[in-house]
Amino acid sequence: MGNDGAVEFTKGHGTGNDFVILPDPQGRLALSPQLVAALCDRRRGVGGDGVLRVVRAAHHPAAAASAQQAEWFMDYWNSDGSIAEMCGNGARVFVRYLLAKGLVTGAGEVPVATRAGLVLAAVDGDDIAVQMRRPHLFDVGAARLGALTVAGTAVDVGNPHLVCALPHGLELDRIDLTVAPGYDPVLFPAGVNVEFTTPAEPVAGADRHVRMRVYERGSAETLSCGTGACAVAAVALRDAGRTTGVVAVDVPGGRLTVTISDEACWLAGPALLVADGVIDPAALTV
Amino acid sequence: MGNDGAVEFTKGHGTGNDFVILPDPQGRLALSPQLVAALCDRRRGVGGDGVLRVVRAAHHPAAAASAQQAEWFMDYWNSDGSIAEMCGNGARVFVRYLLAKGLVTGAGEVPVATRAGLVLAAVDGDDIAVQMRRPHLFDVGAARLGALTVAGTAVDVGNPHLVCALPHGLELDRIDLTVAPGYDPVLFPAGVNVEFTTPAEPVAGADRHVRMRVYERGSAETLSCGTGACAVAAVALRDAGRTTGVVAVDVPGGRLTVTISDEACWLAGPALLVADGVIDPAALTV
Repeated sequence: MGNDGAVEFTKGHGTGNDFVILPDPQGRLALSPQLVAALCDRRRGVGGDGVLRVVRAAHHPAAAASAQQAEWFMDYWNSDGSIAEMCGNGARVFVRYLLAKGLVTGAGEVPVATRAGLVLAAVDGDDIAVQMRRPHLFDVGAARLGALTVAGTAVDVGNPHLVCALPHGLELDRIDLTVAPGYDPVLFPAGVNVEFTTPAEPVAGADRHVRMRVYERGSAETLSCGTGACAVAAVALRDAGRTTGVVAVDVPGGRLTVTISDEACWLAGPALLVADGVIDPAALTV
Repeated sequence: MGNDGAVEFTKGHGTGNDFVILPDPQGRLALSPQLVAALCDRRRGVGGDGVLRVVRAAHHPAAAASAQQAEWFMDYWNSDGSIAEMCGNGARVFVRYLLAKGLVTGAGEVPVATRAGLVLAAVDGDDIAVQMRRPHLFDVGAARLGALTVAGTAVDVGNPHLVCALPHGLELDRIDLTVAPGYDPVLFPAGVNVEFTTPAEPVAGADRHVRMRVYERGSAETLSCGTGACAVAAVALRDAGRTTGVVAVDVPGGRLTVTISDEACWLAGPALLVADGVIDPAALTV
């Protein structure tokens, strides 16, 4: 690999939701949708669910509103090259990167500027926690899985979710999520992320414990979904007659812990940095 | 990322068949099936179709027979942690790595030790070519694609292939390869890689030009398959009443060129190195 124009990167993930992290404090990298898609290409690039560009808030116009409160801006791009406002697991990995590289200290809360405004993060043992929007349960609905219809709860976490408890006797590991579940397009005109859940044995430190699998809107089944875990936690608490509490949510990629209070919702879980390196942009298929 | 026990790597691909390359001249890395699978994990590791460990032939027992002829041994592992004897696209990327890192010179043929014996490679402009086993057409067969049955030719390239020309009117881009094609288990007791082909417009430098898609045995549809391209080329030549010649084979990941003579079969195509880096083994999910 030549080093002309080499781009530094770090690869990291949170419960299997993975990201190409690009340090760019001065905001000088010329990211384009094509370059992001090429970086995220799993066979011809580095591979990831998205790109997290690490820019000083003072050097990015989208961070202007938060630049007084946050030193760093999370410039998040989806793997298809589109821009997203916020990503819960992405923010957790972003903060792990800031801590590992000494760009912030781990004492107290870490404010991060995002396109969705200021997001607070905190170190929680080996986990990183980020403050999410409080889930809002707004309707009932149903998902179709082949010939089966499963009742569910419609939840807004900034994006739409449909949380469906599997009927007794149906195993979570057995359902087929290679095909998108059906849903009511009147209830979800912009599509919906569909979660299927099943109860799990009690764990220490959590009021409830559930397992989930998720089919992400316009994508496929994924190993993890931060907003999906928050939606599932809110429904688990509601089913227990509560509005607040701690819920352990096992996604295929690991365990997330969601803490809902009257004021806030926090998403906590592991966030790991796997590799550091340099990319040769000339070798990418852009 | 800490640097304790950090493992150097390079990520590269040939027509979308991608590899984690591990330099290990002295053969000191303790690779295990679990570590290989963790490295190849596309979300929690680096991601790849396989691992290419770069070991001096003198330092690996499996290279003993070739150590007089080849300086380097390609220690190839599949992404599931199993060991394979040989991989055509893997050998092309392996030789690109040797050249890029100055471990061999690009003048003349480059001998590489593999578990399948000595393999010759050559630089061919921007492409890397490797000598493959000559394809042997041994029977007729048929693949089932949903309700459709497509006649094909059974080909042995060290591994079994079934090369099926799509009937007129059926578009290659439209067939559904999300499900494994059906085949005759008596003809292919150990399974088979199934290629579907369609003719393509003539290109300079090639006697024939075909497009193909492949469903790899025990895996899924892939962007490229080196032995599959060789099998498809042999059938294209047979269909033109020839046993030798040059065939351009377009796979979903790019263009491979297969040259079959009375003595040999060469597989040529691009081989790119995309990124260099270091992995933190402690962050892997082993």
